Amino acid sequence: MRVSLIFAIIASILALGFAFFLSCGIKKASLGNERMREISNYIHDGAMAFLTREYKYLGVFIIVVALALVTFLGWQIAVCFVCGAVFSILAGFFGMKVATKANVRTAEAARHNQNKALEIAFSGGAVMGMCVVGLGVLGLGTLYLLFNGNINFVTGFGLGASSIALFARVGGGIYTKAADVGADLVGKVEKGIPEDDPRNPAVIADNVGDNVGDVAGMGADLFESYVGSIISALTLGVLLCGANKPFKGNEAIIYPFILSAAGIIASIIGALIAKKSKNAEPQKALNAGTYVSGAIVIVAAAVLSKYIFNDFKAFFAIAAGLIVGLAIGKITEVYTSADYKYVKSIAKQSGTGPATTVISGLAVGMYSTLWPIILIGIGVLVSYYAMGGSSNSLMGLYGIALSAVGMLSTTGLTVAVDAYGPIADNAGGIAEMAKLPPSVRAVTDKLDSVGNTTAAIGKGFAIASAALTALALFASYAQATNLTSIDLLNPLTLVGVLIGAMLPFLYGALTMQSVGKAANEMIEEVRRQFRETPGLLEGRVKPDYKKCVDISTKAALKEMLLPGILAIVVPLAMGMLLGAYALGGLIAGAVVTGVLLAIFMANSGGAWDNAKKHIESGEEGSKGSFAHNAAVVGDTVGDPFKDTAGPSMNILIKLMTIVSLVFAPVIAKFGGILLTLIK
Amino acid sequence: MRVSLIFAIIASILALGFAFFLSCGIKKASLGNERMREISNYIHDGAMAFLTREYKYLGVFIIVVALALVTFLGWQIAVCFVCGAVFSILAGFFGMKVATKANVRTAEAARHNQNKALEIAFSGGAVMGMCVVGLGVLGLGTLYLLFNGNINFVTGFGLGASSIALFARVGGGIYTKAADVGADLVGKVEKGIPEDDPRNPAVIADNVGDNVGDVAGMGADLFESYVGSIISALTLGVLLCGANKPFKGNEAIIYPFILSAAGIIASIIGALIAKKSKNAEPQKALNAGTYVSGAIVIVAAAVLSKYIFNDFKAFFAIAAGLIVGLAIGKITEVYTSADYKYVKSIAKQSGTGPATTVISGLAVGMYSTLWPIILIGIGVLVSYYAMGGSSNSLMGLYGIALSAVGMLSTTGLTVAVDAYGPIADNAGGIAEMAKLPPSVRAVTDKLDSVGNTTAAIGKGFAIASAALTALALFASYAQATNLTSIDLLNPLTLVGVLIGAMLPFLYGALTMQSVGKAANEMIEEVRRQFRETPGLLEGRVKPDYKKCVDISTKAALKEMLLPGILAIVVPLAMGMLLGAYALGGLIAGAVVTGVLLAIFMANSGGAWDNAKKHIESGEEGSKGSFAHNAAVVGDTVGDPFKDTAGPSMNILIKLMTIVSLVFAPVIAKFGGILLTLIK
Repeated sequence: MRVSLIFAIIASILALGFAFFLSCGIKKASLGNERMREISNYIHDGAMAFLTREYKYLGVFIIVVALALVTFLGWQIAVCFVCGAVFSILAGFFGMKVATKANVRTAEAARHNQNKALEIAFSGGAVMGMCVVGLGVLGLGTLYLLFNGNINFVTGFGLGASSIALFARVGGGIYTKAADVGADLVGKVEKGIPEDDPRNPAVIADNVGDNVGDVAGMGADLFESYVGSIISALTLGVLLCGANKPFKGNEAIIYPFILSAAGIIASIIGALIAKKSKNAEPQKALNAGTYVSGAIVIVAAAVLSKYIFNDFKAFFAIAAGLIVGLAIGKITEVYTSADYKYVKSIAKQSGTGPATTVISGLAVGMYSTLWPIILIGIGVLVSYYAMGGSSNSLMGLYGIALSAVGMLSTTGLTVAVDAYGPIADNAGGIAEMAKLPPSVRAVTDKLDSVGNTTAAIGKGFAIASAALTALALFASYAQATNLTSIDLLNPLTLVGVLIGAMLPFLYGALTMQSVGKAANEMIEEVRRQFRETPGLLEGRVKPDYKKCVDISTKAALKEMLLPGILAIVVPLAMGMLLGAYALGGLIAGAVVTGVLLAIFMANSGGAWDNAKKHIESGEEGSKGSFAHNAAVVGDTVGDPFKDTAGPSMNILIKLMTIVSLVFAPVIAKFGGILLTLIK
Repeated sequence: MRVSLIFAIIASILALGFAFFLSCGIKKASLGNERMREISNYIHDGAMAFLTREYKYLGVFIIVVALALVTFLGWQIAVCFVCGAVFSILAGFFGMKVATKANVRTAEAARHNQNKALEIAFSGGAVMGMCVVGLGVLGLGTLYLLFNGNINFVTGFGLGASSIALFARVGGGIYTKAADVGADLVGKVEKGIPEDDPRNPAVIADNVGDNVGDVAGMGADLFESYVGSIISALTLGVLLCGANKPFKGNEAIIYPFILSAAGIIASIIGALIAKKSKNAEPQKALNAGTYVSGAIVIVAAAVLSKYIFNDFKAFFAIAAGLIVGLAIGKITEVYTSADYKYVKSIAKQSGTGPATTVISGLAVGMYSTLWPIILIGIGVLVSYYAMGGSSNSLMGLYGIALSAVGMLSTTGLTVAVDAYGPIADNAGGIAEMAKLPPSVRAVTDKLDSVGNTTAAIGKGFAIASAALTALALFASYAQATNLTSIDLLNPLTLVGVLIGAMLPFLYGALTMQSVGKAANEMIEEVRRQFRETPGLLEGRVKPDYKKCVDISTKAALKEMLLPGILAIVVPLAMGMLLGAYALGGLIAGAVVTGVLLAIFMANSGGAWDNAKKHIESGEEGSKGSFAHNAAVVGDTVGDPFKDTAGPSMNILIKLMTIVSLVFAPVIAKFGGILLTLIK
C-alpha cells in the first residue's frame, strides 16, 4: 500500500518537474519587439489583476467554508478542503502565468518557424496540464498517507477543488464572454474596426478572457473531475477491502492510485511526442501524442489489472471509460466542424435569415445529445457488469468509478492540448495588435484553427468526464448515507429528481443573464471611451485597457455569487428538509439534465461558431452577405451557450454531488426535518 | 358500482347533448355576406381536406396496431384501443367542424355586438370541450362495464387516445407552423402585404392551421391526459379494493368515475356562466366560468370523499391537483404576458439586436421552469402523503393519480376556453380578408388578445396535466410489471433514465427540423405562385389556396412519421432488450426532461411572441424599428418552439408511458433479452 502511494507521489512530482522544465524552455524563447512585449504585459497584468481580486473573494470563501466544516465535520476534513482549494488555485495560477508568457513568444516564433511556434504554444498548455495532474495526485496521495487512509477526510480535497472550479469556470465564463461581446459589439459592429485592433478599449480584456476562461477555467474543471473520479474510486474501493470483503489486501485502493501514476507518465511521454513532432499539420502532432498516451494507459491498465487483481475485469472498466471519452470527443467534432453536414446545413439555413440560423443550430445541438448519451450508457453498463456488478452491486459501482478514472487518466495531456488553443489565439491577437506581417498571422491562424477543433473536442471530453465522475460520486454518496436503494417509486426520490433536473435550466438562465448584464456594462464603457477620448479612434491616443479589465473582473465575481451559493445551498437544504432519498434523487436529476444541457449548449454554440467561419471562408455568400449577418447572430447566441452556461453545468453537477458526499454523515443523521413533520 | 358507472355515463351523455345544443345555437347565427361565406368555406374545406387525408393514414395505423394487440395481448385490448382511437377522432372531428363554422359567425356577430361574438366563439370552443369529456367518460365507462371491470383491457382505450393525439398534436403542430412561416416569410417580409391578406396563397392554410393545431391538436392532447389520468386511478384503485385490501367495496374505483361526472356537470355550469356573461371584459367572463366550475369540483370532491371513503383524504389529493393546475396556468401568464417584467425585458433587450433577443428569451424560458416544477413536486408530495402513502405506498401512488384526475376534472371548460382562442383568431382573419370595417376588427382583436392569454395558460395547464398523468401512469406501470422498486443505484435504471431524458431533446430536434423542411416547401410554393400567376399581387386573380393546404397537409403527415415511430418503438425496444427496470428509468427520465423542455419551449415562445406585440403596441421604438426587427426574429424562433416541439413533449411522455403500461405483461415476461446475455 505505502509503496504504491509513494510511487504515485513520485509520478506526481515528476509531472511538476516536467512542468518546471517546460516553463524554463518557454522563458528562454525570444519575446519579440517592444510593441509585442508591451501588449503581452497588458494581457499578463490583466490576467493577474483578475486572479488577485479573485483570490480575495476566494480567501473569504475558503475561510467561511473551512469554519463550517470544522464545526460540523471536524478539523481533518477542513484541512483537506483547504488543501484542495489551494492546490486548484496553484494549478490555475501556474497555468495562467505561463500561458500569458507563452502567447507572445509563440507570436515571435511564428515569424520564423511554425514548428517552433507550435512547440511553445503546446508547452504552455502542457504546463497547465502537468500542474493539474501533478498537484491532484500529490495532494490526494499525501493526504491519504497523512490521515492513515481515512477516505472520509480526503473527500474534503474534492470539495476544495470543486469550489475553486466554480469560481474559475463560472466566473471565468462570465468574464470572457462579457469582454468578447463588449469588444465585438462596439468595436466591430458600431465602429467598424477589425478584431484584435489595439484601438478597442476592450481588446485586452478579451485576450485576458481567453486565458481566464479557457486556460484557468478548463483546467480547474478537469482538476475537479480528475480528483473527483479518484476520490470516488477510493471511497468505493475502501468498502471492498478487508476481512469478508472481495479483496483481502488494499487492491481496490492501490489500483486507482497506480493507474493514475501510469496515466501521468503516459501523458508526459505523449506531451514529449507532440512537442517534438516535426509534422507540418499541427493537428496530427497533437493527435500522435494523444493516441500514444492512450495506448500506454490501455496497456498499463491491463498489466496492472492482472498484477493487482489477478484478472482483467478492472482493465475492461478502465478501457470502457477511456474509449468512451475519446469517442465522445470525436463525435463532438462531427457536430461542430465545418467538415461535416451539420455545420454546413446551418450555414445554408442562414440564407433565409437569423431566425432559421438559430432554429437549425438549436436543433443540431439537441440532436447531438443522442450518441454521447448512448455511449455514456454503454460505458456505465460495460464497466458495471465487467467488474462483476451482477453478483455484487458494490463491485459494479466501483467499476463505474474506475471507468471515470480511466477516462481521466490522460488528463495531463488533454488539458495540454486544450490550453494550447487560447495561447495560439492570444498569439494571433498579439500579432495583429503589434502589426506583424501577414505571414505571421497566417501561421498563428493555422495554429488557432486547430485550437478551435481541440477546444470543441475538449468540451465534449470535459462534459463526458464530468458526467461519469458525478455518477461515480453519486454511487459513493449512496454508500455514505447507507442507502441501499434510491427508489423512483418513492415520491421523495421522484420530487428530488424533478427539482434536481430543473436546476441546470435555472443555472443556465442565471449564467446567461449574467453575461448579458456584464456585457452591457462593458458596452457602455467602451462607448464612453470612444466618445470621451479624442483621438482614440484615429489611433493617436491609447485606450484605458485597465478600466475594461476591471469591469469584466468585477462583473464576473459579482455575478457568480448567486449561482455559486445555489449549487452549495440547494443540495444541503434538500437533504436537511426532505432527507437522503430526496437528495439522491436531486443529484441524479441534476446530473442527467446537466449533462444533456451541457452537450446541447456546447455543440449548438460550436456549430454556430463554425457555420459563421464556414461562410467567412467563402461559402454561402461569404463575409458581409445576408447569410453572414444571420450567422453572426447565431454565433453571438452561441457565445454564452458554449463558453458560459454550458461549461457551468459540469461544475454544477460535480459540486452538488461532492457537497452531498461530504455532508452525507450529517444528512444521514439529521436530514429530513420536513418529512418527520409530514408524517 | 354499477349505479355510479351509470351516473358517470349519464353525465357524459349530458355533455354530448350540451355540445349538440351549442352547435345548433351556432348554426342558427348569421353567416354574413357572400365574401365571408366564401372565405369560411375555404377554411372549412381546407380543414376537412386535412382531416380526410389524416384519417387515411390513421386507418392504416389503427389496423396495424390493432392487429399487433390482438396477436400479443388479445382481442379485448384491441377493441378498447380502436374505441379510444375512434372516440378521439370523433372529438377532433366535431370540434373542428363546429370551430370552422363558428369563426365566420363570430366575425359577423362582431359587426353588431361584442358579447354576441364572444358567445359564439366560446360556444364553438365549448363544443370541443364537451366532446372531449363526454366521449372520454362515455368510452371508459361503457368499456369498463362491458369488460366487467377488467382494467387491463381498458388501458387500450388510453393507448388509442394517445395514438391519435400523436397525429393531431405533432402533425398539427408541423402543419400550422409550416403554413404560418410560409405565409409570413413570403407574404409579409418579401412582398410586404399585410397579415391575413387574401392575395397570399398560404393565408387559408395559415387559418386552417389554427384549427388543426390549436383546436384539434390541443383537444386530442387533453383528451389523452383526461383519459390517461382516469385510467391510472382505476388501475391503482383496483389493487386497493377487495378482501385484505384497504377498501372492502369498490370505493377506489367509484370515486374517480363519480368525480369525473361531477367535473363534467361543473364544466357545463361554468360554460353557461361564461357564455351568458354580459361582462365587457371577455377575460373576466371566461374567468368567472373557470372559477365557478373549480369551486363546484372542490365542494363535490369533499362531499364525495366523505361519502365514499368516510374521510377527507381523497379530497386533499383532488384539491392539490386542481390548485396546482390553476397555479401553473397563472404562472405561465407571468412569464409570457407583457404585463410583467420578463416580456418587457426581452422587448428592451431587442434594442441591442436579434442575438440578445434570442438569448434573453431562452433565459426567460429556462428560468420559468422553476416554479411549475416546485409546484408539481408539492402536488405529488401532498397527494401522496394526504392519501396515506407513508403507511401504504400504493395508497400514496393512488393519491398522485387522484391529483391528476382532480387537475383534469374541469377539462371540459379548460378546452372550451382554449379552443375559443383560434376561433376568435380566425374571425379576425375573415374580417380582414372580407374587408369588414375596422370596428369589426377591433372587436375580434380584443377577443383574440384574450385568446392569446388563454392559449398561454392552456399550454401551461396541458404540460402540468401531462406531467401528472404521466407520473400516475408511471406508477401504474410499476404495478403492472410487479416492480416493487425502480432503483437509481441499479445501472439499468440509471442508463434508462439517461436515455429517456435524452429522448425529448431528440424529439425537439426532429420536430423543429420538420417544421423547417415543411416551411421551405411552402415558401417555394408561395414564391412560385407569385412568380407564375400574373395579376395575383394586384388582387385581380385569386391564388391557388388548395395547393398550399395540400403542401401543409402532406408535409405534416410525412414528417410526423419518424417521431411517431420513435415514441412507440423506443420504449418497447428498451423493455425487450434491457428489461422492465431500464424501461421504468426510461419513462421517468423522459417525463422529467419532457416536462422541463415543454415548459421552457412554451414559455420562451410565448414570451417572444408577446415581446414583439409589446413593441408593436408602441414601446421600444414601435413597428418597423431596429428593436422590432429583432423581436420578429425572436418570435420566428419561438413559433416551432411553442407550437410544435414544446407541445409534442406532452404527447411523447404520455404515449411512451401508456405504451409501456399496455405492454407491461409482455415486458415483464419476455423483456431483458440483452441482459440475460450480459449476465
